[in-house]
Amino acid sequence: MKIAVLGTGMVGQAIAGRLDALGHDVTLGTRDPQGTISRTERDGMGNAPFAAWASGHDSVRLTTFADAAAGAELVVNATSGHGALPALQAAGAENLAGKVVIDIANPLDFSNGFPPTLFVKDTDSLGEQVQRAFPDALVVKALNTLNADLMVDPTTLGEASTVFVSGNDATAKATVTELLTSFGHTDVIDLGDISTARGTEMLLPVWLRLMGALGTSAFNFKIVR
Amino acid sequence: MKIAVLGTGMVGQAIAGRLDALGHDVTLGTRDPQGTISRTERDGMGNAPFAAWASGHDSVRLTTFADAAAGAELVVNATSGHGALPALQAAGAENLAGKVVIDIANPLDFSNGFPPTLFVKDTDSLGEQVQRAFPDALVVKALNTLNADLMVDPTTLGEASTVFVSGNDATAKATVTELLTSFGHTDVIDLGDISTARGTEMLLPVWLRLMGALGTSAFNFKIVR
Repeated sequence: MKIAVLGTGMVGQAIAGRLDALGHDVTLGTRDPQGTISRTERDGMGNAPFAAWASGHDSVRLTTFADAAAGAELVVNATSGHGALPALQAAGAENLAGKVVIDIANPLDFSNGFPPTLFVKDTDSLGEQVQRAFPDALVVKALNTLNADLMVDPTTLGEASTVFVSGNDATAKATVTELLTSFGHTDVIDLGDISTARGTEMLLPVWLRLMGALGTSAFNFKIVR
Repeated sequence: MKIAVLGTGMVGQAIAGRLDALGHDVTLGTRDPQGTISRTERDGMGNAPFAAWASGHDSVRLTTFADAAAGAELVVNATSGHGALPALQAAGAENLAGKVVIDIANPLDFSNGFPPTLFVKDTDSLGEQVQRAFPDALVVKALNTLNADLMVDPTTLGEASTVFVSGNDATAKATVTELLTSFGHTDVIDLGDISTARGTEMLLPVWLRLMGALGTSAFNFKIVR
């Protein structure tokens, strides 16, 4: 499938790399491709510059948000929470219309330090904001509840765990579930319409506290039933 | 141990019954004991009147919040979210001082229908409100993330799952962890201080959506790591 991944950070790299390895035709979208590829310093989280990743992924083309989305059948939003709507606006509503848009972003607000709070919650969600902003896109919230490595290969945990899909379109959720299954996810729960993204986005506060308590982000929720 | 359980609803009954069966000296606290025991109609959730439960639990004494707390070494708050602070105020700060107070209540607001929202979240929690209101109590948030039956016997799920403790006092958390272990919980994660109750209280929105999606409340979170 022709897939655009918006965002070149850890999540974007992990998703793009995995989709590429699975044989998809992957394009990475960014605001300023030339700036992204020419950056030589580590980012604020200490991650290596994008060029280091790109040199090992020749078949993944880096381009603008709009160009990536225009050529794609499916779009993955792998930006930060604050970056989601600007990136999708840059991608262009006309390039998202009728397409499945997987929204992985979490509405984290780091402006008051760590742990971050959520800039939207409980009575609304980032997933819903994206769906309202792009009514012709088939938005599916997914994969925002585990770290980038586990998103694309949960088998390293050695035990099955759970991921969730939230969205208004059943066919879109089936498409996303198939992609998640190809990543190795064996338990994908369909929570319901896009408003159920409130629930999965509100998992982040306990996720962050668990990371602190366990001293690792290599964990995931499993719904035992 | 002499334990007071505040609240006579499903959670209070489950906790009191289990503690009684385990040999503890259990007192149930309520606002109006005579009213509670004489009620003959089912409650708003369709549950049998309290007297039906009480007739099978002769050794559990029903009394006022204050009398229950006064005679207890450990207090369990099993009220609704809105009922928590009024119940504990009725119990009396002097009857809570120096004691472990397990807070199970969730800050659910049903005033706008179902699913409920949270009346405190993200930058504060009900657990913290309770701790601030009763600074001399040793508040531990626990058991608010699963249904009443599973709180007191998680083994019916057939697979180990996870519960959490949040609190400022390590000894109090150790006492609660021991109690949880006696209920059959084998994976108790200490998330940190009472502010980590924000995380577990914010699990409720996804819990409620999972109940809808799965058609049962007989499930629990397991942290796979």
